[in-house]
Amino acid sequence: MAVGNGVMARLSPIAGVRLATAQAGIKYPNRDDIVLIEVSPDATVACVFTQNQFCAAPVTIAKQHSSSTASRYLLINTGNANAGTGRQGLQDALLCCEAVAALLNVASETVLPFSTGVIGEQLPIDKLTSALPNLIDSLSTNGWLRAANGILTTDTRPKAVSKTILINGSAVTVTGMAKGAGMIKPNMATMLGYIATDAKLDKALLQTVLTQCTEQSFNRITIDGDTSTNDACVLIASGESGVVINEGIGCYQQFLDCVNEVFIELAQGLVRDGEGASKFVTVQVDGGAISDECLKVAYTVAESPLVKTALFASDPNWGRLLAAIGRAGVTDLDVDGVTVYIGDVLIAENGCRAASYTEEAGQRVMDKEDITLLIDLGRGNSSEIVWTSDLSYDYVKINAEYRS
Amino acid sequence: MAVGNGVMARLSPIAGVRLATAQAGIKYPNRDDIVLIEVSPDATVACVFTQNQFCAAPVTIAKQHSSSTASRYLLINTGNANAGTGRQGLQDALLCCEAVAALLNVASETVLPFSTGVIGEQLPIDKLTSALPNLIDSLSTNGWLRAANGILTTDTRPKAVSKTILINGSAVTVTGMAKGAGMIKPNMATMLGYIATDAKLDKALLQTVLTQCTEQSFNRITIDGDTSTNDACVLIASGESGVVINEGIGCYQQFLDCVNEVFIELAQGLVRDGEGASKFVTVQVDGGAISDECLKVAYTVAESPLVKTALFASDPNWGRLLAAIGRAGVTDLDVDGVTVYIGDVLIAENGCRAASYTEEAGQRVMDKEDITLLIDLGRGNSSEIVWTSDLSYDYVKINAEYRS
Repeated sequence: MAVGNGVMARLSPIAGVRLATAQAGIKYPNRDDIVLIEVSPDATVACVFTQNQFCAAPVTIAKQHSSSTASRYLLINTGNANAGTGRQGLQDALLCCEAVAALLNVASETVLPFSTGVIGEQLPIDKLTSALPNLIDSLSTNGWLRAANGILTTDTRPKAVSKTILINGSAVTVTGMAKGAGMIKPNMATMLGYIATDAKLDKALLQTVLTQCTEQSFNRITIDGDTSTNDACVLIASGESGVVINEGIGCYQQFLDCVNEVFIELAQGLVRDGEGASKFVTVQVDGGAISDECLKVAYTVAESPLVKTALFASDPNWGRLLAAIGRAGVTDLDVDGVTVYIGDVLIAENGCRAASYTEEAGQRVMDKEDITLLIDLGRGNSSEIVWTSDLSYDYVKINAEYRS
Repeated sequence: MAVGNGVMARLSPIAGVRLATAQAGIKYPNRDDIVLIEVSPDATVACVFTQNQFCAAPVTIAKQHSSSTASRYLLINTGNANAGTGRQGLQDALLCCEAVAALLNVASETVLPFSTGVIGEQLPIDKLTSALPNLIDSLSTNGWLRAANGILTTDTRPKAVSKTILINGSAVTVTGMAKGAGMIKPNMATMLGYIATDAKLDKALLQTVLTQCTEQSFNRITIDGDTSTNDACVLIASGESGVVINEGIGCYQQFLDCVNEVFIELAQGLVRDGEGASKFVTVQVDGGAISDECLKVAYTVAESPLVKTALFASDPNWGRLLAAIGRAGVTDLDVDGVTVYIGDVLIAENGCRAASYTEEAGQRVMDKEDITLLIDLGRGNSSEIVWTSDLSYDYVKINAEYRS
């Protein structure tokens, strides 16, 4: 199950970034499960990682490598998260880097490992390393679509997007891909996201762009509230377009907006393909005194099992919305000042159902696949948006059957 | 679906407390949905209520009445929560009190109203008040079992318990009943709980006992993390046994233990009959530096959709446990110092699967209906316990179909 048809525009290659995808048989036979991304020696690379304290071995190694050395290769496997694997897991993640480095004659610190899949199983390192020579041979700038498929687990479809803008007459392109599906409440990054541009940015500024865009995209989605052990998001700037981006120049905001659009589209794509998702839900909280209380309300609503099952049932059950808002922990909330809309329909004000509300009007907006819940706290000017999906039989089915 | 067979011991009447149950046709025909509890003029009554800021009209009125006047009558209806009903809801809750008071010739402030059921519908006040005369006629000290059935909504069975202890040679009895099922993460009290004893306590001490026992029972359970708008719990001391309980005397602890046992049994009964529950799960977190971090971990584990679906599937998926512990927000957690048991089986230590662990041993404990998850954080002496249930197809079914 997924929301909408997930049509993807054509993916533009990024000069200076090559990708390869192959079958290593890590969990399933005959399925792409290993991806290599190569960036040119002049590229800059920025990363953000999960804040889950039980972070996976590859996250630990990738953090070390990316902070010490300019990154050249990203090795991604699915089918095995290499998380909860202790000392052996760390050794295996290092071995992966060393195997890539040996074949390509670079330092192993230039290689960043990423894994996603089942937690707690040791990585089948031999399968992985024996797939590397062919993988390296097939590196291509046109590898994005196959790679976007190759990083999936319980996702039902690839999430990838390209955008091109003109900056002072020169084309700058941003192409990115991500995977999500379950254990999705990213905290710093999504499960796995790789975005590249041919603009030129120094590493510090690239990190700023990455952090800022992640905060407003992947860090604003929740499928089940379960922050993964393996979240990682990488932003690559190859510089091959010749367009230099500095913070001081006028086109910085234009570039930032473009990258942000790619991030938001990918993040929303994860929600639309969330495990068992049949609805795409925007929870917008306006009128907060501070941003933090808007987020509290937005996440409490977005993660309430009762709200999510009502969404699944297309039930305009505004009582559950009020109950969720009321337990979100906003200090001294005047419930009579709260207004709640579903889509364009005012459903609640003054602590109860709006006089103008009709069940028919509520049902009309709830029947849609894309639903906006707009909550105005009526006590300030802060505003936040969180995107989520519903809680369906299929979510239970997928997670009762899949060993994540 | 519910966990176990829910056998109830015989319920002992409490002298000075009479109960009556009737059909008012509030939501369904031919179903008990209204309960009246009468306490003797000498009894003391203590209450705790939901901390949800969108609290229901009867909660607001019951708070006012119980703080101003000695309570004599508790009127409880199911089928309609009288929540999210604004000014009209408050008037209706008051009208209920006035109708009871007029028939019994008492002040309306001596009546406490309680409602549970659908949120956002106005209370059918005529149906309710016209059922009152017959209800009052049938008051009886033997009314506990029928009343325990009469307060249910999506519960599949009544939750009630009696205990008798000897204090200085005199029998003291505690009898209580509660209802729960969904929208259950009580914050101060459960959905609805009524517990009575024939011991004699002044109101201040009774409130202390109630608060203390609630904290360790109803405030330690979570079915779906959704704190209700209508939670209320009432403790009645009729004094008819002649046994006086003071804080200074030796038997105080004995009495407190007895009341606590009744509270815990009722709270656990709510979890066992949680919506769609097929497992009863005790999440025990030991070795915390402070109580608060134990609770953070316990609730994060207990409310993780991924942990709950694994429990439903009887899947010893310890990776999801580690992931939940790792995102619980414990500052500077050393994950290598964390040990995790399912039942008596050590599953994880040193950040990975225990060397002694076998899938067969894990499966053996996960196949049980009653499961204990024991997490030792290895950094202090604090300990907390939370009880929860699993996340099943039936939870989704019930909440996609039921308008709560």
